[in-house]
Amino acid sequence: MLSQEDRFNKGIEALQQITGNEGQQVIDSLGDISPDIAKWIVEFAYGDVISRPGLDLKSRQIATIAALTALGNAQPQLKVHINGALNVGCTREQIIETILQMSVYAGFPASLNGIFAAQEVFQERDAS
Amino acid sequence: MLSQEDRFNKGIEALQQITGNEGQQVIDSLGDISPDIAKWIVEFAYGDVISRPGLDLKSRQIATIAALTALGNAQPQLKVHINGALNVGCTREQIIETILQMSVYAGFPASLNGIFAAQEVFQERDAS
Amino acid sequence: MLSQEDRFNKGIEALQQITGNEGQQVIDSLGDISPDIAKWIVEFAYGDVISRPGLDLKSRQIATIAALTALGNAQPQLKVHINGALNVGCTREQIIETILQMSVYAGFPASLNGIFAAQEVFQERDAS
Amino acid sequence: MLSQEDRFNKGIEALQQITGNEGQQVIDSLGDISPDIAKWIVEFAYGDVISRPGLDLKSRQIATIAALTALGNAQPQLKVHINGALNVGCTREQIIETILQMSVYAGFPASLNGIFAAQEVFQERDAS
Amino acid sequence: MLSQEDRFNKGIEALQQITGNEGQQVIDSLGDISPDIAKWIVEFAYGDVISRPGLDLKSRQIATIAALTALGNAQPQLKVHINGALNVGCTREQIIETILQMSVYAGFPASLNGIFAAQEVFQERDAS
Amino acid sequence: MLSQEDRFNKGIEALQQITGNEGQQVIDSLGDISPDIAKWIVEFAYGDVISRPGLDLKSRQIATIAALTALGNAQPQLKVHINGALNVGCTREQIIETILQMSVYAGFPASLNGIFAAQEVFQERDAS
Repeated sequence: MLSQEDRFNKGIEALQQITGNEGQQVIDSLGDISPDIAKWIVEFAYGDVISRPGLDLKSRQIATIAALTALGNAQPQLKVHINGALNVGCTREQIIETILQMSVYAGFPASLNGIFAAQEVFQERDAS
Repeated sequence: MLSQEDRFNKGIEALQQITGNEGQQVIDSLGDISPDIAKWIVEFAYGDVISRPGLDLKSRQIATIAALTALGNAQPQLKVHINGALNVGCTREQIIETILQMSVYAGFPASLNGIFAAQEVFQERDAS
Repeated sequence: MLSQEDRFNKGIEALQQITGNEGQQVIDSLGDISPDIAKWIVEFAYGDVISRPGLDLKSRQIATIAALTALGNAQPQLKVHINGALNVGCTREQIIETILQMSVYAGFPASLNGIFAAQEVFQERDAS
Repeated sequence: MLSQEDRFNKGIEALQQITGNEGQQVIDSLGDISPDIAKWIVEFAYGDVISRPGLDLKSRQIATIAALTALGNAQPQLKVHINGALNVGCTREQIIETILQMSVYAGFPASLNGIFAAQEVFQERDAS
Repeated sequence: MLSQEDRFNKGIEALQQITGNEGQQVIDSLGDISPDIAKWIVEFAYGDVISRPGLDLKSRQIATIAALTALGNAQPQLKVHINGALNVGCTREQIIETILQMSVYAGFPASLNGIFAAQEVFQERDAS
Repeated sequence: MLSQEDRFNKGIEALQQITGNEGQQVIDSLGDISPDIAKWIVEFAYGDVISRPGLDLKSRQIATIAALTALGNAQPQLKVHINGALNVGCTREQIIETILQMSVYAGFPASLNGIFAAQEVFQERDAS
C-alpha cells in the first residue's frame, strides 16, 4: 500500500511528464482558492489513476482527448491534454484523428470545437 | 476519390472487423424504420472515419469507449464498442483502465456505469 | 394579463391537443408525489410557453424532438413528444428526418436511440 | 391561489434577495430581445419555485451551484449564483466545498472550472 | 446512387443556401488543420443529411437551433445556425420562440444563453 | 497528513453513515471486475471529499441530488443518494424541493425523472 507521500510523488512525476509546466501552473493557480483540489489532482488523478500500469500514456491521452471533445464543456482542459498527448509522444495526426472520430459519437459541433482547440495548441507550439 | 460503392465496402469491412455480428444486427434492425441511418453508419462512420489510417483500431476503440462512458447516455452503444475493442485486440485490462480514467474526467457515476457495462460484456463472452 | 385559471385552462387544452391521454396520465401519476410539478407542467410549460403564438405546434414538436434526441437522457419524454408530433399533424417522415439530422449535431448514438424510440412509438400506434 | 401580480411580486423579492442588482441587470438586458423570458424568470423561476417554503435559501443556492458546476455549460449563470449564495448567507467555504464535491460526481474539469468561477466572484467582491 | 461529386455539389449548394459566406469561412478555416472534416461537413452533413427531402429547410434550422440551445456547448455553431434560419426564411420571432421553448426542456440557463446568441446575431445583421 | 488506512477508515464510516448497506453492496459488486474503483470511492470520494468539514452532510446530499438530477444520466446513483439524504436527516420535502428546483436549471424532463426516482425510493422505504 502506497503512503500519501508516495502517491504525491508518483502524481507529480506523471503530471510533469504529461503536462510539463502547464499542469504545474494550473496547480499553482489553485493554491490560494483551493489547495485541496490541487492536491487531489496530483495524488488522485495523476498518482492513483493516470500513472497506473495497464494502459500506456499515449492511449490514456487519446482517451482523455476523446472524452473532453465529446463533453465539449472543458475547452481549457482539452488544450492542456492535447499538449499532454504531444508531450508523451502522440503525433499530431493521431490527435486530429481522435477528435475527428468524435464527429461520429458526439456530433460535428463538438468535433469542430476540438479541431479548433488543436489548431490553437499546434500554432502555439509552432510559435515557441 | 472513392466511389460510393468503395465507401460502402470499406465501411462493411471495418464494421465486421470491429463489431462482428452485433453491428450487422443493429444495421439490420434499422432496415424498416430508417435504412438511411444504417447506410450512413456503414459509409460515413465506418467507411469514411473509422477505417482511416493515422490511428490504429485499438486506439480508436479506446477513444470511443472513453467518449461513450463520459457522455453516459448511450449504454447499448458502449456495450457494442467494448465488444469491438476486444474484437480488435484490446485487453480487458485496457478497457477497464480507460473506463476507470473517466472517473477523473466525467465523475464516478459515469465511470461506474461504464464498469457495469464492461462487466455485462465480459460475462456474456465468458458464458458463450 | 392572464389569470392563473386562464393559464391552467390554456395549458390543459394544449396538453390534451399535443399529448392526448398520455400527458394526462403523467400529470395524474405525479399527484401523490408532487402535484406542484404537475401544475407547473400545465400552467408554465403548456400554458405559458407551448401555447404561445409565433411558432406553430408542428414546429414546436420538431424542436422538442430535436432537443430530447440530442440530450439523450429523457427517453420516456421523447416518446411522449414523438406521439405528440403525430397528434398535431407531423408525418412519420418529418419525425424521422428530425431525429436523423441529430446524427450531425449530437452524434450517431443519440440519433440511433432516437430512431429506436420512434420505432417503438410507431409500432405501438400500429398495434392499437 | 396566487394572482399573477402576487407571483411577480414574490419573484422580484426573491430575485433581489438572492441576486441583488445582478439579476435585475440580466432581466433588464432581456427587455428588448425577449421580455417574456425575463417575466418567466421572475414569475416562474423565482416566484413559483425558488421562493417556496420547504427548503431554505442557502440550500437552494447550494443545489443550484452544484447543478451548474456539474452541467458545465452555463458559466455566467454559475457566477450569478455564487454571488447569490454569498448574498443569502452561505460562506465561501461552503461554496468551495460544494464545487469540490462535483469532482466526484461530474469530474475534475467541471469542478476546476467551477473553482475558477468562484475565484473570479470572490476577487470581484474583494475589489469592490 | 449519388456519386461523390454529386454529394459534394449538393452539399455546397445547401451550405451556401443556409449559411451564406459564414459556412464557407468555417470550411476555409479548416483547410490547413483538417480538410477532411470540412469535406465531411459538405458531403455528409449538408449533402447527405440536410439537403434531403422530407423536412423543409425552415424546420431543419428550427431543429438545429433547438438542439444546440439545449446542448449549450456549441455557441459559435448556434450563431451560424440562427443566421442560417434567417437565411432560409424563418422569422426572428420563430427563432426566439424555439429558444424560449428550451427553457422547458433544458432549463433557463441554456435558454438564456441561446437568447443572448440570437441577440448578437440580430444586432450584427442590423448593423450591416 | 492522513495515512492510506485513515483515509479508508474515514471513507467507510462516511459511506455507511450516508448509504447504509446499499453503498456497501455497490462496493462489493465491484470486487471482481474492478476492486480499484471500489477503493477510490471509499478513499477518495467518501474519505477525502465527502467527509470533509466545511459543509454538513445534509447539504452535501442536496448538492449531489441536484447534480445527478441535472445531469440525468446516472439514475441508479441518484436513487442511492436520495436514500442517503434521508439517512443523514433530510426530509422528503427537502429532497423533492431540490429536484423540483432543477426544472429551472436543467428543464422539466430532468426534473420529472428525478421525481420518479424519489417516488421509487420513498415507496421502497414505505414497503420495508
